Amino acid sequence: MKQLITIFIIIIVPLTCYPQTPEEVVQSIFNNALSDNTAEENLLYLCKNTKGRIPGSEEALHAVKYTLGALVEAGADSVWLQEVPVPHWERGDESAILSSKLGTLELTISALGLSVGTGISGISARLIEVHDFEQLRKIGSEGISGRIVFFNRPVDNTLINTFSGYAGAVDQRISGASEAAQYGAVGVIVRSPTQAMHDFVHTGVVRYKQNIPMIPAVCVSPNDAELISRFLENDSESTLHLVSDCKNFPDTISYNVIGEIRGYEKPNEYISVGGHIDAWDISEGAHDDAGGCIQAIETIRIFKELNIIPRRSIRAIMFMNEEMTSTGGQVYADEAEKNGEMHYAALESDRGVMSPIGFGFGNAGEARLQKLFQLEEYFKPYGIRYFTRGGGGSDISPLKRFNTLLIGYIPDTQRYFWFHHSANDTYEQVNIREMQLGSAAIASLVYLIDLYDL
Amino acid sequence: MKQLITIFIIIIVPLTCYPQTPEEVVQSIFNNALSDNTAEENLLYLCKNTKGRIPGSEEALHAVKYTLGALVEAGADSVWLQEVPVPHWERGDESAILSSKLGTLELTISALGLSVGTGISGISARLIEVHDFEQLRKIGSEGISGRIVFFNRPVDNTLINTFSGYAGAVDQRISGASEAAQYGAVGVIVRSPTQAMHDFVHTGVVRYKQNIPMIPAVCVSPNDAELISRFLENDSESTLHLVSDCKNFPDTISYNVIGEIRGYEKPNEYISVGGHIDAWDISEGAHDDAGGCIQAIETIRIFKELNIIPRRSIRAIMFMNEEMTSTGGQVYADEAEKNGEMHYAALESDRGVMSPIGFGFGNAGEARLQKLFQLEEYFKPYGIRYFTRGGGGSDISPLKRFNTLLIGYIPDTQRYFWFHHSANDTYEQVNIREMQLGSAAIASLVYLIDLYDL
Repeated sequence: MKQLITIFIIIIVPLTCYPQTPEEVVQSIFNNALSDNTAEENLLYLCKNTKGRIPGSEEALHAVKYTLGALVEAGADSVWLQEVPVPHWERGDESAILSSKLGTLELTISALGLSVGTGISGISARLIEVHDFEQLRKIGSEGISGRIVFFNRPVDNTLINTFSGYAGAVDQRISGASEAAQYGAVGVIVRSPTQAMHDFVHTGVVRYKQNIPMIPAVCVSPNDAELISRFLENDSESTLHLVSDCKNFPDTISYNVIGEIRGYEKPNEYISVGGHIDAWDISEGAHDDAGGCIQAIETIRIFKELNIIPRRSIRAIMFMNEEMTSTGGQVYADEAEKNGEMHYAALESDRGVMSPIGFGFGNAGEARLQKLFQLEEYFKPYGIRYFTRGGGGSDISPLKRFNTLLIGYIPDTQRYFWFHHSANDTYEQVNIREMQLGSAAIASLVYLIDLYDL
Repeated sequence: MKQLITIFIIIIVPLTCYPQTPEEVVQSIFNNALSDNTAEENLLYLCKNTKGRIPGSEEALHAVKYTLGALVEAGADSVWLQEVPVPHWERGDESAILSSKLGTLELTISALGLSVGTGISGISARLIEVHDFEQLRKIGSEGISGRIVFFNRPVDNTLINTFSGYAGAVDQRISGASEAAQYGAVGVIVRSPTQAMHDFVHTGVVRYKQNIPMIPAVCVSPNDAELISRFLENDSESTLHLVSDCKNFPDTISYNVIGEIRGYEKPNEYISVGGHIDAWDISEGAHDDAGGCIQAIETIRIFKELNIIPRRSIRAIMFMNEEMTSTGGQVYADEAEKNGEMHYAALESDRGVMSPIGFGFGNAGEARLQKLFQLEEYFKPYGIRYFTRGGGGSDISPLKRFNTLLIGYIPDTQRYFWFHHSANDTYEQVNIREMQLGSAAIASLVYLIDLYDL
């Protein structure tokens, strides 16, 4: 009898792993995601209790601990941390006052991440507005030297792809400081790269070029940028007193958080799903990217709750330090290489957690892509009908070396840059249902790719 | 010379009407919509200055006047009002206190539109929870008579189409009062039909059946509904003291607002684009449906600004009284019939102004539908890839009698019922870019249908 029961278990259990058609499994994944509130609770916690979780901060460590627990709660077979070297930069007092014939204008500013500071006493200099690096070159040292450069090129709102709009303006934030410094500028103030017109400042990282003096770099809101421009139109001699007492400290250690479901057939092949757990210090980082992390955790929770036993091992990863120097993704890929791991596919959710519209696929041959595009049929009933080329994300891109299929989760990003890198990226700006639909879409895609060897 | 100039004008002007390919015209429509702030200003005005514009109210008349001016501003060739008989119902003081062994619970309630009142002294009765009309029938008069019925069936959140979810619960709000009254209930309190779990109440109209006593009907928030249910579980003898001092007054007069661009080839054929200008008294009615009205006004503004001279006449219509008895749409169709107008197509935007995903087409033969579906190619570059069967809206549905193509504008409605009919439907909940994309999509569709005789 005991033997009979054992045989019964051996035969029946694997069968009951997939008792339904793939369409039915996808349906049950969506049903589960849409009727469970774990994701909402996790989002609320990360936003309200680990706000400002910049790499190297206590808040980031708090988020690491919390998501480790959330992965255990979700039922991951194993959960661990991966040491990641991260920068340690701290914002200080900051203020900026523009003085002109029109009077004075107090600006709300935000130092750019990794920027050098002005010291607490600040700097004062005449302000000059430029729109691109070519204009900077034309003006040259004579006009730039000793000045604070105000980069004021707005995002092109007519571009339908909001990331293309962002990409067309963000060079000012990333490279503006070094570009201006080579002509002798003493600081830069950058219009926030966003399609929105509002009072929020949208920070982000600045990258200094080697062998060029590092000068303080801050950003202003789009509304303030318009005001500054009007002041300068009326008085080109306007001066700015800029205080940004931020500081860089020696690198420190933080962690990637990883949770895994062991595959039953090919446990040594991995499908990774991830977001980044760090966020800007002025932000709750709800859309960017607590939501992406939560969708990864949800993938584990949903698989476990629905008893979907994957053939390959599935990993949910909270990458550390995407925002500053992307060391989390590097470490993950380096360790994978060291351990000789076979990374079959990796997905990143880092474009906000608005309604899902599709997926982008990269680092794959044409035959594999064509097979993946056919999966679209499974998703049409859920309003997801955009399967396209070109996928990935900055955390998973170091996996390119392994021939890993790289997948980018694509939500509707039309309102994303209203939140991105700003104090406006809050729990309240996430619609829970839209985030849940994304979790279900991601978990379903992972399930289908694993099932069909895609 | 004068003659030459005249000839020049006659020949050249029509040519310059469409100097671009249709693809280029569509592109210029999107560019214009995304870089103009008229729509945002109109939305802000309607939300903040005509809040609570229920049919028959002063606020509704204010909105009528404002949109009349906005249509003139937009450059309509002619603008006029159309008299519409509307109900006149007014909310009064309202409160509800649940008393049970657990203590008392003060509820936030909102009378349903057109509901009869309790009078200022209110009514007190034991509360009984039911989930559907079948359960009501089973309990019967013995259990229902003299009670207040609490309808607590939630929206099924697993339904992907949020309007299907809504439709599966809203019968409690629309018909619950008469269904309960036939078993002797003295009032009904209805869980707000929404996918959200929050403290907002979502009102809406109640419809009384003839020859059944009319009893007071109010709604509560989903959070309060959960609490009431818990109270009743613990104490089935719980009683509710309900005050809802609303009143029905004799019908009054309000107006549809219409703006028209005269067609140059077939001026007596009409393509209508509309939303409804009335909104619930507790709401700014931003998504429902100031946004839809503004998209209609934008269609006129964009055509005029880009000098797109349509072959048929284009009308933007702000329908009055969609929310209560839909007389605006009836009057519009009746007058069209009286005037022998040829209504070629009509579009309604009344599902919120989130990002556009497509259009639904109805009241057309298969051949016409197939041609319309081919238009999808023009919209794919704008992320709009869902052209489907079944279109329309309650304001344009009376045009069915004319063989008019009926079109429903389809945005991404996943978060729509977080706002719908509630105080949460505010200006701040609209993402301007998403609304602009919708305006551009609508104007482009009207342009293409007119251009290609679709």
